[in-house]
Amino acid sequence: MTVPGRLRIVGIGPGGEDWLTKEASRSITEANDLVGYSAYIDRLPHNGGQRRHPSGNGTELERARHALRLTEEGRDVALISGGDPGIFAMAAAVFEVLDRDPRWRGVDIRVCPGISAMQAAAARIGAPLGHDFCVISLSENLKPWSLIEKRLLAAASADFVIALYNPASGARPRRIHDAFALLREVRAPTTPVVFAHAIGREDERIVIETLGATDPGLADMSTLVLIGSSRTRLIPRKGAAPFVYTPRGTKDF
Amino acid sequence: MTVPGRLRIVGIGPGGEDWLTKEASRSITEANDLVGYSAYIDRLPHNGGQRRHPSGNGTELERARHALRLTEEGRDVALISGGDPGIFAMAAAVFEVLDRDPRWRGVDIRVCPGISAMQAAAARIGAPLGHDFCVISLSENLKPWSLIEKRLLAAASADFVIALYNPASGARPRRIHDAFALLREVRAPTTPVVFAHAIGREDERIVIETLGATDPGLADMSTLVLIGSSRTRLIPRKGAAPFVYTPRGTKDF
Repeated sequence: MTVPGRLRIVGIGPGGEDWLTKEASRSITEANDLVGYSAYIDRLPHNGGQRRHPSGNGTELERARHALRLTEEGRDVALISGGDPGIFAMAAAVFEVLDRDPRWRGVDIRVCPGISAMQAAAARIGAPLGHDFCVISLSENLKPWSLIEKRLLAAASADFVIALYNPASGARPRRIHDAFALLREVRAPTTPVVFAHAIGREDERIVIETLGATDPGLADMSTLVLIGSSRTRLIPRKGAAPFVYTPRGTKDF
Repeated sequence: MTVPGRLRIVGIGPGGEDWLTKEASRSITEANDLVGYSAYIDRLPHNGGQRRHPSGNGTELERARHALRLTEEGRDVALISGGDPGIFAMAAAVFEVLDRDPRWRGVDIRVCPGISAMQAAAARIGAPLGHDFCVISLSENLKPWSLIEKRLLAAASADFVIALYNPASGARPRRIHDAFALLREVRAPTTPVVFAHAIGREDERIVIETLGATDPGLADMSTLVLIGSSRTRLIPRKGAAPFVYTPRGTKDF
């Protein structure tokens, strides 16, 4: 039996209407129901008969099931995700539910990609992701810390630029310190490091430091951390923060 | 002296108006001049007095200089980039020019992020980037092949999902075969592999294979290749291609 409703898993970017895609905007406008973490739902304008289902953080699987259940009632549902739903956000949670429970596999599902925090942070400061890079979540809620260490070491040793998501939380404030201790064993103290907090939102704040001299405690749960490669460079400017970028190649600098 | 014009480095996504952000749309509409690779410029609607400066592929630095020179004439310039300008696209080329030549550092420059090919490909098939991943360009135009090998090996050994940009070109059709030979030494033959060709464009084509059984020659210069981690899974569907996704953690499957 095909379910009559549909599900759009919609990325609204890290903050600010300006980074919404046309597809995301349309999916939100057309939906009967908006489901999502309350902080994301609150960013969206109210729209007549549309129902809103805000939920707490950290309940991704239950939120995904709730959205899928609504499609059984024939609803057109937008499951709202920060950033890009496909990058440490809601899309994987939905597919985990489908994987465990076949009953919703007939639902018309589409992922609407969005601007992820690393892209927004990169755009603000220059082009730090201009060369090969790795993207790692420091959250150990769903994976062992030993695997995170292995990946940090592999990424650092092969001279990737590194983007760190979920660098800290109230429950594990020391892990970003552990990560930096490990990175400092492999990478030069002069390596540029960027702390990009709440990009696109009112409390946006960007700090550019070096790996050797910085306090990793600058990262909180709303911070995206970028660690440069050995080629990442700063371009000084008069009266403004320097640009940070990674050249496209290794042959010319 | 501050230069009167301004430069917007605008990401238009991998194809299709639907993935343009509001900021990108506005920056294109407001510009006096559009500069970019002709295939990208051709995608944009014509707009009255706006001047268009299409150029060939592979001339990034010259294209960046041309855009910066136009700002000296007080022009509002949109430098058009495929995907996200910050990910293997035009932004790094602009900052390379600024790094070498200080004269344009006073220009009002902003990067407008866009949906990159890996995000569009991921959205089409499920959520393959739902966990830690690495992004590698296979182009050896600007870096030695030995470094690419080192990074492939590091990424594969630490069980990252891997997104490969620029997997092949007329000048180096065998490198994707070399890359797969290396990956096959480290990763299981059952690892899901996705070839996503021209996503969002008329000739879009997606092939889902396994590392062990596939022909890497399926990749051409318009293909984004995704290699799963050991956790990447397929969800079968009736009458449709399977979903491909990577669970958020390693603890639950």
